[in-house]
Amino acid sequence: MIFSSALIENAVNEFAKLPGIGKKTALRLVLHLLKQETAQVEQFGEAIARMRQQIRFCNVCHNVSDAEVCSICSSHSRQKQVVCVVESIRDVMAIENTQQFNGLYHVLGGIISPIDGIGPDQLNIHSLVERVQYQGVEEVIMAVSPTIEGDTTIYYLSKKLKEFPVKITTIARGIAFGGELEYADEMTLARSISNRLPLENYVQNK
Amino acid sequence: MIFSSALIENAVNEFAKLPGIGKKTALRLVLHLLKQETAQVEQFGEAIARMRQQIRFCNVCHNVSDAEVCSICSSHSRQKQVVCVVESIRDVMAIENTQQFNGLYHVLGGIISPIDGIGPDQLNIHSLVERVQYQGVEEVIMAVSPTIEGDTTIYYLSKKLKEFPVKITTIARGIAFGGELEYADEMTLARSISNRLPLENYVQNK
Ligand SMILES: [Zn+2]
Ligand SMILES: [Zn+2]
Repeated sequence: MIFSSALIENAVNEFAKLPGIGKKTALRLVLHLLKQETAQVEQFGEAIARMRQQIRFCNVCHNVSDAEVCSICSSHSRQKQVVCVVESIRDVMAIENTQQFNGLYHVLGGIISPIDGIGPDQLNIHSLVERVQYQGVEEVIMAVSPTIEGDTTIYYLSKKLKEFPVKITTIARGIAFGGELEYADEMTLARSISNRLPLENYVQNK
Repeated sequence: MIFSSALIENAVNEFAKLPGIGKKTALRLVLHLLKQETAQVEQFGEAIARMRQQIRFCNVCHNVSDAEVCSICSSHSRQKQVVCVVESIRDVMAIENTQQFNGLYHVLGGIISPIDGIGPDQLNIHSLVERVQYQGVEEVIMAVSPTIEGDTTIYYLSKKLKEFPVKITTIARGIAFGGELEYADEMTLARSISNRLPLENYVQNK
């Protein structure tokens, strides 16, 4: 692509670095911003940069946070004895959107996947065990995607947590096996949380 | 959508203001940027803001420019006596990408469209007439989209330019009638410029 302005070329190249955005789309976005007020475009650029500069990860659950402890962990109206284990912050958002869950979360930061070279040590598992051991957690809900890697992760975690008096449940299989949790619609996701099962049932159902 | 971070919520909302980007896509982009180095994300935000702050429009042709006169108008290797009239800066980029045109441009900033309330006075027509009158322009190529509005604009401009000794051509109808110029592939666009016709032929062909 040939540009007669280095300013535009830079902006297009920056947009085109984003996943799913090609050069043509990038140009369309840049030309759109060109028509907006300068203050609005500055606000756009600043909101993005500030987000990355100031974002933190919750000391307790590893969710994204604006402070040391996230707004979910520090809320007084949530059930602190129930912890929902998820792969990513995206899953936290998906479940929060259902407005069906009132406990806390634990973000693993991925899933055990030998093929991708991701083992238990790369995930936030140690801190989960500590929460169960010392923070009075009564139930751990395994809300990982129903895939082979998800199953591997569930079995690994349940072995780690076996020695503690904690109930382990999995979200109901409302989501088709092999499906990605974050793409489930809110109804399915909400129902699969309400209908969660004790781990024993999950193993029997297989 | 529920966010546990105002920083992320702001960034998502800013992305979602862009055309064709919904909340889900916006979130995906934000979560991608979250995984990048802070310096990289700052560079993104700054490139966008700087583009809008510093962009100018060429005094001569109204194309986007990093200076008072754009790099095309100020180039010594271009044919200054040939001016290609286009609707938008996007069309300038599309034609530049063909690398088939070595003249200058004139960006109208739109097209005559009574339905959208756009008349000749809202377009950069006066400055085109002045260029033809005083700048030794020998040929004006009408490279507007072959639509009803495009035709209306061509007729209006040709009437305005009739009194000057300038050849008026239109780009060849390689592009299907009703097609948008900016979406034409480079080959079609390149050919339609090389095969441009004197306006008389265009009128006869109709
Ligand atoms: Zn937290
Ligand atoms: Zn110019």
